[in-house]
Amino acid sequence: MSSPFMFEKPLGMKDTLPLLYDRNEEVTSQIAEEVRLWGYQTLHTPALEYYDTVGAASAIHDAKLFKLMDRQGRTLVLRPDMTAPIARVVSSSLKDEPLPLRLAYNTALYRTQEHEGKPAEFEQYGVELIGDQTVSADGEIMALLISAFEKTGLRHFRLAFGHIGFMNALFTEVVGSGDHVHALKQFLFEKNYVGFKRYVRKLPISALDKNRLEQLLSLRGGPDMLETAKELVSSPDALRALQEVQEVWNVLESYGVSSYMNIDLNVVLHIDYYTGVVFESYGKELGFPLASGGRYDELVPKFGRQASATGFGIRMDRLLEALNHIDCPLNQERTLILFSKERQKEAVEEAKQLRESGKRVVIQHVAGIEDLDAYTSTFTNVIQRIGGSAS
Amino acid sequence: MSSPFMFEKPLGMKDTLPLLYDRNEEVTSQIAEEVRLWGYQTLHTPALEYYDTVGAASAIHDAKLFKLMDRQGRTLVLRPDMTAPIARVVSSSLKDEPLPLRLAYNTALYRTQEHEGKPAEFEQYGVELIGDQTVSADGEIMALLISAFEKTGLRHFRLAFGHIGFMNALFTEVVGSGDHVHALKQFLFEKNYVGFKRYVRKLPISALDKNRLEQLLSLRGGPDMLETAKELVSSPDALRALQEVQEVWNVLESYGVSSYMNIDLNVVLHIDYYTGVVFESYGKELGFPLASGGRYDELVPKFGRQASATGFGIRMDRLLEALNHIDCPLNQERTLILFSKERQKEAVEEAKQLRESGKRVVIQHVAGIEDLDAYTSTFTNVIQRIGGSAS
Repeated sequence: MSSPFMFEKPLGMKDTLPLLYDRNEEVTSQIAEEVRLWGYQTLHTPALEYYDTVGAASAIHDAKLFKLMDRQGRTLVLRPDMTAPIARVVSSSLKDEPLPLRLAYNTALYRTQEHEGKPAEFEQYGVELIGDQTVSADGEIMALLISAFEKTGLRHFRLAFGHIGFMNALFTEVVGSGDHVHALKQFLFEKNYVGFKRYVRKLPISALDKNRLEQLLSLRGGPDMLETAKELVSSPDALRALQEVQEVWNVLESYGVSSYMNIDLNVVLHIDYYTGVVFESYGKELGFPLASGGRYDELVPKFGRQASATGFGIRMDRLLEALNHIDCPLNQERTLILFSKERQKEAVEEAKQLRESGKRVVIQHVAGIEDLDAYTSTFTNVIQRIGGSAS
Repeated sequence: MSSPFMFEKPLGMKDTLPLLYDRNEEVTSQIAEEVRLWGYQTLHTPALEYYDTVGAASAIHDAKLFKLMDRQGRTLVLRPDMTAPIARVVSSSLKDEPLPLRLAYNTALYRTQEHEGKPAEFEQYGVELIGDQTVSADGEIMALLISAFEKTGLRHFRLAFGHIGFMNALFTEVVGSGDHVHALKQFLFEKNYVGFKRYVRKLPISALDKNRLEQLLSLRGGPDMLETAKELVSSPDALRALQEVQEVWNVLESYGVSSYMNIDLNVVLHIDYYTGVVFESYGKELGFPLASGGRYDELVPKFGRQASATGFGIRMDRLLEALNHIDCPLNQERTLILFSKERQKEAVEEAKQLRESGKRVVIQHVAGIEDLDAYTSTFTNVIQRIGGSAS
């Protein structure tokens, strides 16, 4: 039983030891407090859902799902995201609650991994604003994300937002629908811009249209850039999307957070059910998004309630990594009171008083320690209550 | 897609809606604060473990495990308890940390259910004191449980402790080992005292021995009762166990918590790996234990580290039920600022100020609301910033 094998964990599964655990709790509570102040209400859904309901409605690729069978032979999945479970709750337990609903969650998500390194279990802090189709909702979600990041002490982060409606309309104008659209989006999702350009060059379209597609890649910046974007498209859908982007920018300005923002009309998220504004946030020197989100108006109706939706999810593991370089005033101070049997009561009372003043205190019978030096070295302060009583 | 079927959840799986979620968070943080002050360090382990390691070492019956296969064909289990994962961590990542280790966790556990009603996923708050074989450790664990309960505002609870070593020794003296011992313990585990007595009457033993077994059922009370218990046994193991019970009682007295305590030499927990003091705690008018725990000195060595262990687990769902009748000052007050487009900035700034003073504030574009009366009725306070600016 005591072979090294006993220590193995499944692929992508990790232990969280006390120092990281406490830091995660601290950052989570900073975010939770901000989310609470903005009037969002937090809920929790189970780890296991039916594949036929939440599993199939999830945006996560089937091959990424952890599946198991229940005794009745039905397939269950470990929650791969929280968007679908929340859509289920909004349409069932909360179906009589008037919209808009502002909901939040903080939970572990599960996605299978092929290789070591990437976590198969990770914590996500997210919010969903259900039933508000206005640009104010899009802006609020991003402003809340920025405000939450600020509360954690995070600096040097950027938030880039685009509009999937603009991209869809441009692609429709230039290459119609079907495989080419899917391929182009896939390149953008992977941020493989070289691949995108190469693919565009081989498309059976005019040089002018090729140029329009390549121009898309440069549509990044402030709202001035939107004038350039307008010249690339002509369909009402595309122009309406650009108008929305401008209005969302205005909302973000009213929140005073536009200095964190870029418009990036190339943003494609891995989840293809987004229907409008989409965004992702990057920290400094980190190659992966800390958070992402956007509008997904077609999901909640699948569960039977007519409601638009927008939201974000923060990857807590990545946020902690981004915060790593920031001064972390984590109080791991602990006092040790060592006692021998006849002075246990004295030690108990002393510990009680110190704890009442907010100190972390371990009391420990000296007979329970194997290596006294090693043990006491793990404390910042050691008090001895051994042998004849002081009183 | 929008059939009622979409709302179904797997057997024993539940949603936690905001009011209960917040209350659970509040109680959890009260316990966490006490556990922190006592110097325990909190950690987290993954939801999925290998069946061959943690699954098999777990005390939970095999049929209760949620199992699934990974791509390599190895069987995984959803964490059924935290004792085995912590034993794994103590013997691997923490193997160089000197003992005793004081660890804590707050996590969901998973056990399959046959029927509706019983949860298949439930939250447990637990602590483990690893590597201290003294009675001070047994006493500390129970004193901490009581102190944590007090911090949540729980009253009218009792904690009963026994000693599995005493029971084992008595049964060995009277019926040897084997099937009879297992059957007798099973009756006590189920608290089926009528079945116990009926079984004892049919045993092929003397009337005197039958009487000794029946006498066991009355071994409940304060430390005075231990004199009666001593008369029922003669083996050194049994007498040593009774001596330990007395010493643990003395430790509990030094903590000033013995008024919550009973000695109950009939306590059998469903987990048969306990090796010494065992205990469970009951609330008023609740037919199930709020918490249980005890000494399990044989588990950690299975993972390769020689260390004794004791700990408890609190069933958070049951504790919340027990606290239900207690005045719950949960602040669900929320202010709503309704705005029209031209006054968004004013609303944003007003919300910011109110939030800085600790108020929960939703700001909502009036155009995003379907049913204004229903929506505003969900707030304690409504401020309107609609139409011509006040300034």
